[in-house]
Amino acid sequence: MIFGLFGGAQAAGSTLDAGMGQGFHDYIDFHVEADALGYHSAFCVEHHFTGWTQISATLNLLTWLAARTRHLRVGTAVMVLPWHNPVLLAEQAATLDLLSGGRLDLGIGKGYRHNEFKGFGVPADEAEARFDEALDVMIRAWTSTERFSHHGRVWQFDDIIVEPPAAQKPYPALWMAAGSAASIRKVAERGCNLLLDQFAQVDVIGERIALFKQEVESLGRVFDPMSVAVARDVYVAKDAADRRAALERAARMRQRTIDVARAPGQNGGSHVLSYATSASGNEAAALCGSPDDIARKLEALQAAGVHYLLASMGGGSRETLRRFADEIVPAFQRHPAHIM
Amino acid sequence: MIFGLFGGAQAAGSTLDAGMGQGFHDYIDFHVEADALGYHSAFCVEHHFTGWTQISATLNLLTWLAARTRHLRVGTAVMVLPWHNPVLLAEQAATLDLLSGGRLDLGIGKGYRHNEFKGFGVPADEAEARFDEALDVMIRAWTSTERFSHHGRVWQFDDIIVEPPAAQKPYPALWMAAGSAASIRKVAERGCNLLLDQFAQVDVIGERIALFKQEVESLGRVFDPMSVAVARDVYVAKDAADRRAALERAARMRQRTIDVARAPGQNGGSHVLSYATSASGNEAAALCGSPDDIARKLEALQAAGVHYLLASMGGGSRETLRRFADEIVPAFQRHPAHIM
Repeated sequence: MIFGLFGGAQAAGSTLDAGMGQGFHDYIDFHVEADALGYHSAFCVEHHFTGWTQISATLNLLTWLAARTRHLRVGTAVMVLPWHNPVLLAEQAATLDLLSGGRLDLGIGKGYRHNEFKGFGVPADEAEARFDEALDVMIRAWTSTERFSHHGRVWQFDDIIVEPPAAQKPYPALWMAAGSAASIRKVAERGCNLLLDQFAQVDVIGERIALFKQEVESLGRVFDPMSVAVARDVYVAKDAADRRAALERAARMRQRTIDVARAPGQNGGSHVLSYATSASGNEAAALCGSPDDIARKLEALQAAGVHYLLASMGGGSRETLRRFADEIVPAFQRHPAHIM
Repeated sequence: MIFGLFGGAQAAGSTLDAGMGQGFHDYIDFHVEADALGYHSAFCVEHHFTGWTQISATLNLLTWLAARTRHLRVGTAVMVLPWHNPVLLAEQAATLDLLSGGRLDLGIGKGYRHNEFKGFGVPADEAEARFDEALDVMIRAWTSTERFSHHGRVWQFDDIIVEPPAAQKPYPALWMAAGSAASIRKVAERGCNLLLDQFAQVDVIGERIALFKQEVESLGRVFDPMSVAVARDVYVAKDAADRRAALERAARMRQRTIDVARAPGQNGGSHVLSYATSASGNEAAALCGSPDDIARKLEALQAAGVHYLLASMGGGSRETLRRFADEIVPAFQRHPAHIM
């Protein structure tokens, strides 16, 4: 099993007297230590207009992080294609990929937050079509060595050659989040890697991985177990009270996400948020407790076919970062992953 | 007098066996040394669709550079606003500004290259209006602490608060290139700093600085001599033949820029390019020769009111970088700048 990190960042510091920007520096320092501890990757969200200084320019934060680390892969989870000019995004991603020696994992999505669709003036019912058009342009931008034109529904480009090329060939590793059978099928068809959310229970995770494997193989490709990364809330608790407090913090953060994302008078959008509404389910999915508790849950995930886990350490707990790496990860690295 | 650097970068290496991306790493290494030598700033171009892997995602390259340096200010010269979503650009600039501790100099422009207008599908005759609208949105994005909406000619945003704020207050230092009286007046009206090109002769530079000073003061503000940065080609030559070869290299690079920028059948666009067409004028403007030759030219520029010089060291010559810093700059730092 391999282990990466998943989470957000905010510019404001966690204390009132910390200057603006301290939160970004805390994020960088946390992941510089993660790099030294041997974590494989760090995936970071992209969001806009939240009002709590949540990271918006994710590729810039990850560029800084990649410049400060040596081995850590840097990932987006996810860049929302309908907000971005696909040519500029292809250039930015390729530039980071070259600078970092091919360490970019580009997670992409179509968006789910009502306030972001409204803010950018993008009709939510066009999200899928805009995602598809943007991804087509990006792939052509990375792979075409000849000038080309694109006259689409949203984007017009005339006689362009998009540079630089990426370090990874034919383009940066792409990841997509999915939950439903239809969306998992689309990830397979696009040849992307699959991100699974931190809320679904272990049996559901197992079903999704099996479906993705089947879809990939039905397309005539070899399934790579490392092409599925599963996010989980992780907290190494000192005792029962500490565990309870961590679960309550996680619940508050989830609720904040649900509140900011949902349209007035509606229950919010994506499969991720629909799974996030059951408190008991969230607690069951979280890897929160003693190292032994966490190891048991990791074994269950491994048995369900999970070979790549993304730990979301909500508050950025250094103690959890270190204890997870020191006390839990080694047992799973010693046993080679079961190949499905 | 203070001294910065101005130039471009390309992803491809300078030799055939260097891998793609080596040119970016050379750019970074060059400027890491410049930081150690005490250069004040590095301004970098943004261009698209050239076919020679010229830097396109400039803020990402500068983010990496800022992560690798401590004092060097990082600048764009210039980000072309008509290519960018102004909200995303405001977020990216503020994020870099926070990460770097306020070291961003954001040069902005309206574009001048025919192939870029064509490529992005932006009518060249809308450049000025698009620049104005985008800058209005960016300034509001950086300064509004309340949610706002913008319904403009090109951009629509609804109920947004743009985060993070920048480190510099009220927003990152802005720079604009200008040559004509009308455009210099606009720079003053916008409260921006002024970039002057590397081709205009010293008397013209003096006239422009005087005009800018007059415009700034007529608006009731105090003129800061450091608010004008003048670009010059710089090469410390070993002898006459070395000088001649450097001037010829510079002429070839200029011609490449003119060729890629101009519309079919037309002479190119901007004042920068019109100045770039006279070979004898270009040679007279360049600081190319022995340290003594260069010092004489710097004295003339200083007498014309130049207190901030951006050296463009075309080929990225390390010897010029070091000799300019060691043998030429100190004499100008010892003599306090003449305040106009």
